[in-house]
Amino acid sequence: MKVKVAINGYGTIGKRVADAVSLQDDMEVVGVTKTKPDFEARMGAEKYGLYAAIPDRVKAFEDAGIEVKGTIEDLLEKADIVVDCSPGKVGAENKPLYEKAGVKAIFQGGEKAHVAEVSFSSLANYDDAVGKSFVRVVSCNTTGLARVLSILRDMYELRKVRATMIRRVVDPKEDKKGLVNGIMPDPVKLPSHHAEDVKTVLPDVNIVTTAFKVPTTLMHLHSIAVEIDGNVSVDDVISRFDEEPRIMLFSKEEGFTSTAKIIEFAREYRLRYDLFENAVWRESINFHDGELYITQAIHQEAIVVPENIDAIRAMFELADKQESMKKTNRTLGIA
Amino acid sequence: MKVKVAINGYGTIGKRVADAVSLQDDMEVVGVTKTKPDFEARMGAEKYGLYAAIPDRVKAFEDAGIEVKGTIEDLLEKADIVVDCSPGKVGAENKPLYEKAGVKAIFQGGEKAHVAEVSFSSLANYDDAVGKSFVRVVSCNTTGLARVLSILRDMYELRKVRATMIRRVVDPKEDKKGLVNGIMPDPVKLPSHHAEDVKTVLPDVNIVTTAFKVPTTLMHLHSIAVEIDGNVSVDDVISRFDEEPRIMLFSKEEGFTSTAKIIEFAREYRLRYDLFENAVWRESINFHDGELYITQAIHQEAIVVPENIDAIRAMFELADKQESMKKTNRTLGIA
Repeated sequence: MKVKVAINGYGTIGKRVADAVSLQDDMEVVGVTKTKPDFEARMGAEKYGLYAAIPDRVKAFEDAGIEVKGTIEDLLEKADIVVDCSPGKVGAENKPLYEKAGVKAIFQGGEKAHVAEVSFSSLANYDDAVGKSFVRVVSCNTTGLARVLSILRDMYELRKVRATMIRRVVDPKEDKKGLVNGIMPDPVKLPSHHAEDVKTVLPDVNIVTTAFKVPTTLMHLHSIAVEIDGNVSVDDVISRFDEEPRIMLFSKEEGFTSTAKIIEFAREYRLRYDLFENAVWRESINFHDGELYITQAIHQEAIVVPENIDAIRAMFELADKQESMKKTNRTLGIA
Repeated sequence: MKVKVAINGYGTIGKRVADAVSLQDDMEVVGVTKTKPDFEARMGAEKYGLYAAIPDRVKAFEDAGIEVKGTIEDLLEKADIVVDCSPGKVGAENKPLYEKAGVKAIFQGGEKAHVAEVSFSSLANYDDAVGKSFVRVVSCNTTGLARVLSILRDMYELRKVRATMIRRVVDPKEDKKGLVNGIMPDPVKLPSHHAEDVKTVLPDVNIVTTAFKVPTTLMHLHSIAVEIDGNVSVDDVISRFDEEPRIMLFSKEEGFTSTAKIIEFAREYRLRYDLFENAVWRESINFHDGELYITQAIHQEAIVVPENIDAIRAMFELADKQESMKKTNRTLGIA
């Protein structure tokens, strides 16, 4: 018996989660939704069967020549769980629908933490999601931080974590007005709320964050400094990062001088150039005056995909943490 | 008797320093140099009298119809001091020429510190340059940090300063290949050398820095966190910044959401939209868990101009720190 998964919102995250679900042997996609009859809707209809996310829009899809199998409510009837991949805040609006249909639901990091019973990041707190009905997979930035800090927390006593996030302003597909030349403090008032989001999955980590948007679409970049009592072995940290499949080490020596180069590599490595792994610069890892420095880049479109798969397994108690992560990694080619 | 100032390199910094010198009543520009007969050379020739920075290029200027009054060596004969505004590292190569001519010299922050007797930033260490022959005005990033930290050092006991610099990749006039879409750790190995540069003017400040280049030309941005023992009054910090003419406070409430908006203001405020002041976001100033947060933007083309003028005054003992800064501020419209 496979877990039947509905994807509500076949966009940037939704289409990736749908593909990832379809690679698993213990779950399957029973349909996807879209609000508008665009090219993504057409692709979703062909690949997974399309349902109208907004019931009275069925005709709009039919007018555009896109086959619609019903509405979101029809889809939920066929599903055991819905992965809500709608834009930030819309997930919370959808929740009553899910409750009414009696399906479990995963929300994304754009929602407030209280939308779900628990916030989730595989390495940080897989067990907290076991058997739960409503789980929120934390955002791309939080996932990136949580992975690295989960590993470091197991190795050392972390005194304080300081992270500056240099964020891609929009995703590559966006073509409305944007920040073309400039740097935007976001938020202006410091520290930023991102630290609080990390604490939803790593409550014992003392972390403070700042965040700025810059004119790039490719990846976020995190400059992380971790204050640690006692001695830290940079070689040990590199070894542990090297062992963890969800972290990939990149070296300036090999030509990885910027996020542009990392994406150029990813374009030859996976469809859509999805980088499910944290991209950590090997040379950036350094211990100086009581602080461990790490620079990493995060592919915002892809990073949360494996965590969505793991969350489904935890919620249906299909596997324990190690087994689920191993299976997700193997099926998604995370080596 | 006015101090006779030669400008070696009429480019981004040189043309601004020349204009600033010509606004003073105790110094004058006796000529500027250029290596190539481009539009900047033509403007320099018309405004200040042009000399060939490389002696055997005199003919190239004449062929282009640009009047040349001689070579750099001819210019140095007429000067009491040369402000070296050539590209990074070239200043050091020029130094023997200045020594031979028996003129004082100011170098810019692109040179290594040992090129000069002392590194200089007005608020930090004006007095160190008094009477000196060779002075290095620190870089735009260092000047921006040094101003803010000089003020805070006078107010509080600073435990440790952490600054992340998000740097404009090139100046606006550059049109060769650049970083168009991406984020570049520069340097990859952390911490960055910028902290050491701050210590050349503020040796008692414990500072660590990281730096990243992003696809913007307008301004650098600094995310600064200052660990301070004891209580800090955000209102006091804002008051002191407000009192200091070389710091300008900007508020998100007034629409200053990014560096693009700050420059839009500057375009109506000064020729070349030169912002000689640190642009500090008022709302960013916050004290949280023992750390004072400050976000500031630095107009890399303009920020060091007042410091170059002050350095000349210090080297010729024309005025003390307060008098010089006041005069420089008044003449450059720094209010």
